[in-house]
Amino acid sequence: MPKQPLTIQGAAISPGYAQGIVHLQRSLLGPIDVPVKGAQLNVEEEFTRLDQATAQISNDLIILATRVEKEIDKHLAEVFGVHKQILDDHLLKEELRREIVDNLVTAGSAVKSVFLRWEKRFLLMESRIAREKGDDLHDVSIRLRNALAGITTHPLEQIPENCILVTQRLLPSDTVFLNNRSTAAVLLEYGAKGSHAALFARQLGVPCISEIPNILEKLTNGDMALVDGTLGVLIVNPNRPMMISFQKTVDENALLLQKAQKLAGCPAVTLDGMLISVNANVGCHEDTSKALKNGADGIGLYRIEQFYIGRTLPPTSDELLDEMRHTLSSMKGNSVCVRLLDVGADKPLPFVGFMAETNPALGRRGIRLLREYPELLYTQIKAIISLMSDYEVQILVPMVALPEDILLVKKMLNTFCIEHNISPLPKLGAMIETPAAALSASTIAPHVDFMSFGSNDLTQYAFAADRENASVETYYNDDSAVIFRMMEIVHSDVPDMPLSICGELAGSKEHIRRLLQCGITSLSVAAPLVPLIKETIRKTKVDLPR
Amino acid sequence: MPKQPLTIQGAAISPGYAQGIVHLQRSLLGPIDVPVKGAQLNVEEEFTRLDQATAQISNDLIILATRVEKEIDKHLAEVFGVHKQILDDHLLKEELRREIVDNLVTAGSAVKSVFLRWEKRFLLMESRIAREKGDDLHDVSIRLRNALAGITTHPLEQIPENCILVTQRLLPSDTVFLNNRSTAAVLLEYGAKGSHAALFARQLGVPCISEIPNILEKLTNGDMALVDGTLGVLIVNPNRPMMISFQKTVDENALLLQKAQKLAGCPAVTLDGMLISVNANVGCHEDTSKALKNGADGIGLYRIEQFYIGRTLPPTSDELLDEMRHTLSSMKGNSVCVRLLDVGADKPLPFVGFMAETNPALGRRGIRLLREYPELLYTQIKAIISLMSDYEVQILVPMVALPEDILLVKKMLNTFCIEHNISPLPKLGAMIETPAAALSASTIAPHVDFMSFGSNDLTQYAFAADRENASVETYYNDDSAVIFRMMEIVHSDVPDMPLSICGELAGSKEHIRRLLQCGITSLSVAAPLVPLIKETIRKTKVDLPR
Repeated sequence: MPKQPLTIQGAAISPGYAQGIVHLQRSLLGPIDVPVKGAQLNVEEEFTRLDQATAQISNDLIILATRVEKEIDKHLAEVFGVHKQILDDHLLKEELRREIVDNLVTAGSAVKSVFLRWEKRFLLMESRIAREKGDDLHDVSIRLRNALAGITTHPLEQIPENCILVTQRLLPSDTVFLNNRSTAAVLLEYGAKGSHAALFARQLGVPCISEIPNILEKLTNGDMALVDGTLGVLIVNPNRPMMISFQKTVDENALLLQKAQKLAGCPAVTLDGMLISVNANVGCHEDTSKALKNGADGIGLYRIEQFYIGRTLPPTSDELLDEMRHTLSSMKGNSVCVRLLDVGADKPLPFVGFMAETNPALGRRGIRLLREYPELLYTQIKAIISLMSDYEVQILVPMVALPEDILLVKKMLNTFCIEHNISPLPKLGAMIETPAAALSASTIAPHVDFMSFGSNDLTQYAFAADRENASVETYYNDDSAVIFRMMEIVHSDVPDMPLSICGELAGSKEHIRRLLQCGITSLSVAAPLVPLIKETIRKTKVDLPR
Repeated sequence: MPKQPLTIQGAAISPGYAQGIVHLQRSLLGPIDVPVKGAQLNVEEEFTRLDQATAQISNDLIILATRVEKEIDKHLAEVFGVHKQILDDHLLKEELRREIVDNLVTAGSAVKSVFLRWEKRFLLMESRIAREKGDDLHDVSIRLRNALAGITTHPLEQIPENCILVTQRLLPSDTVFLNNRSTAAVLLEYGAKGSHAALFARQLGVPCISEIPNILEKLTNGDMALVDGTLGVLIVNPNRPMMISFQKTVDENALLLQKAQKLAGCPAVTLDGMLISVNANVGCHEDTSKALKNGADGIGLYRIEQFYIGRTLPPTSDELLDEMRHTLSSMKGNSVCVRLLDVGADKPLPFVGFMAETNPALGRRGIRLLREYPELLYTQIKAIISLMSDYEVQILVPMVALPEDILLVKKMLNTFCIEHNISPLPKLGAMIETPAAALSASTIAPHVDFMSFGSNDLTQYAFAADRENASVETYYNDDSAVIFRMMEIVHSDVPDMPLSICGELAGSKEHIRRLLQCGITSLSVAAPLVPLIKETIRKTKVDLPR
């Protein structure tokens, strides 16, 4: 008898459609028990095994970091640097050896208990320790124990081709093994839409549904499943009508996409004749190539954080300019909106005074940091101005909350341009990503040429819900009436101000009309979304309320 | 020749007036060098010294905690529990001993280097470590080294009576030594208005000015100073006209206070005839006595967190009821607004699942936690309902961002009252302390009887500025137009909703008129402020714009 079909609604965290065979992966995070050795423990031998395992993992991490940096994203690669730091920690090494000697246990057992102790110590000593730290310690601990037990492959390296991977949650390092070839879709028990894992699933184009309680009990290896990552609907063991209907959706979508791709290079004009600029968010050379390929009208958000993180000294303006030219080369002649460096205590830089913060998202980040380090700002301005010979350049100031946040940038920009006889000045814009900025746009407006909504942070602050924190994800509603209301307030307070948006909300088709009604005339989205968003705009009648 | 007068504008972080002689205290946080022993180090002797110092400090901490709990506040006392945990940490002890043996150094030198190493390890391993953790390690390290050097008193225990204390910044434990008898005022180089030190200075009634750069270089021991903590103005070496003018301000203020105190028990009615209820925020029995003495119309905010923190099991509803009856006894028959438990990852409770959060202020706090632990909510509701026999009870729900946040409470309240045949129900209110709640008041309104602005958190989220974080204090503007605009939006969206306010803003005389114009008819402030706020209201003409 065929199994009963089962339809499950989860959280849609990465869009797309897939069908395939379910593969359950229980052990991604679970403890792997190392076989206990006999009574005749050779301490020296355990030392050697520990050293070998550490060296091996250390090596793996370097390879992994390089691979991730190339294939996926520079940001994610940082994670493995942290893991290597943990592994290289002198005191940790010493404690592992002492554990072996004092308790006459195997290296594997020492790793288990010492790491547990460290995790506990963090819990005891530091009540605000980041959840990711626990993940990191756990990740390294599992790697080491696997290496000691002779397991040399990551569990995800062995999953069947084209399967639908089902697991509890993904660690950042797990996402490396998800790529279009080996994984059709991912189903998770936990994982917020804003989590790193979700971001990377979207970047890789792997459909993903999360928030399915007890998923490992509900599904069986070999089950057939239809995954609608766009709506967050999972159908297990579908019957024939379900499969036909699913295929129809997939086909319609493919057709739409095909049409969108064909028209990607054309401008996006609404049914009532409004020309909307659809740009791409980029961070690296590959992003810019994708932007070009997908017909982006320009670069709507150029993130430059990766040129700062992981360096012991900040880049000079020449270095920064070289990096920027490299990143942007495939879009020469187009418009580029460079966002000034937006880092804070969650990504401490060795060359700025370290400030541990209880709530880094509510701390000294974005323009707040640059106000304290004007030399960092100067380097950026110098490099960005040099870009003007080849691009139509705009400058975007992150985390604006007060008019003073813009004034310093404006003053430095003016002085630089007068000194170097540069005219006209690049356009200057304020990110509207704090509720305070949205509610006081008229005080910021006199100092800027445009405003850009950062809907991710705006949502995070309006709802007081960290978008990386799965336990408050029901509070992180970036399509809430509250968010649109803030946009309407800005549009009504400063009706002549050009408005753009560069958060995730800009890439969701269902909300395009509403965004345009709020006065937004320019959107910036992930490059692969450009064709669909353009096509959506072409089918939209804004019907501005008067 | 007399010194030139010097007027300095700082940040007013605790109001009041004082004049006196300046006492510079440089060493509150600085390292105290322990005399180096000769070459003949006796390891066993150093072990003994270390143990003795540890035992002594451990004992001191218990005494300190008890004293703080009695004299100042239960919350502050927690700090010393954390310090004791650090001191008792098994691994830390071991590392100190190893440092002595391996490097043949004195106990004092071992404490210095091991604590530094731990601080660094936290910095390396945990990029988001709370700034307070550094303070805590530093605090314990200095205590231990002082004890080893034979210094048994806290530097602040030796400051002259009635002096004006000048120092870089205050640690929580320093505030214990500030009381009206020994310190006339405090001048700081750093310290946010929202910091613990500032809160306690206000609670103790010690005027305090912060944000005076290089203050230790600007002032000299023995300087005469006039401190206006209300306006944040400091005058060093005043001339005669300055002293006369200052004395006049002090006298006028005293007169005003005298008059206010005389009328404290009378209702506060504005010049245009609006009756405004002025209530007190309370957390313990002493607060309630003060509320009564200062003529509060009721308890506007009863915080119950102290009955939960530091316990291994949550209180039963009987225990909670006993505690509440004890706290409130002196105000029997009055109105009491109980705020439901508002804790989060920054104050982890042993009996709820531990969740380390990167940004606890944007995490699972207030009603979000209670939604996950309805049994905690039930206990509170049961105890609060039992209070109804003796008090006019209201229930306030913290951190409301969505209508669902209220609905669960309302449903539980209804069910309980029906089952126990209780009628009428206590009034239910929503804290408006997220921008989202302020901008969607009309969706929350159908489910509540009143709304209360929590201006502290509302400011923190609107400006994305942690109010405990000194590095972003210029962004924490609780009297900004943005905050009043949100109140106006609420008042205009739900014009019939009774509105109150219970943040710090409620206690600032200059803004009373503006608050009343926003439709607020009830304020809750620290008990000692009640008379002045009432008197301010009596002199206010609201002039409601129509």
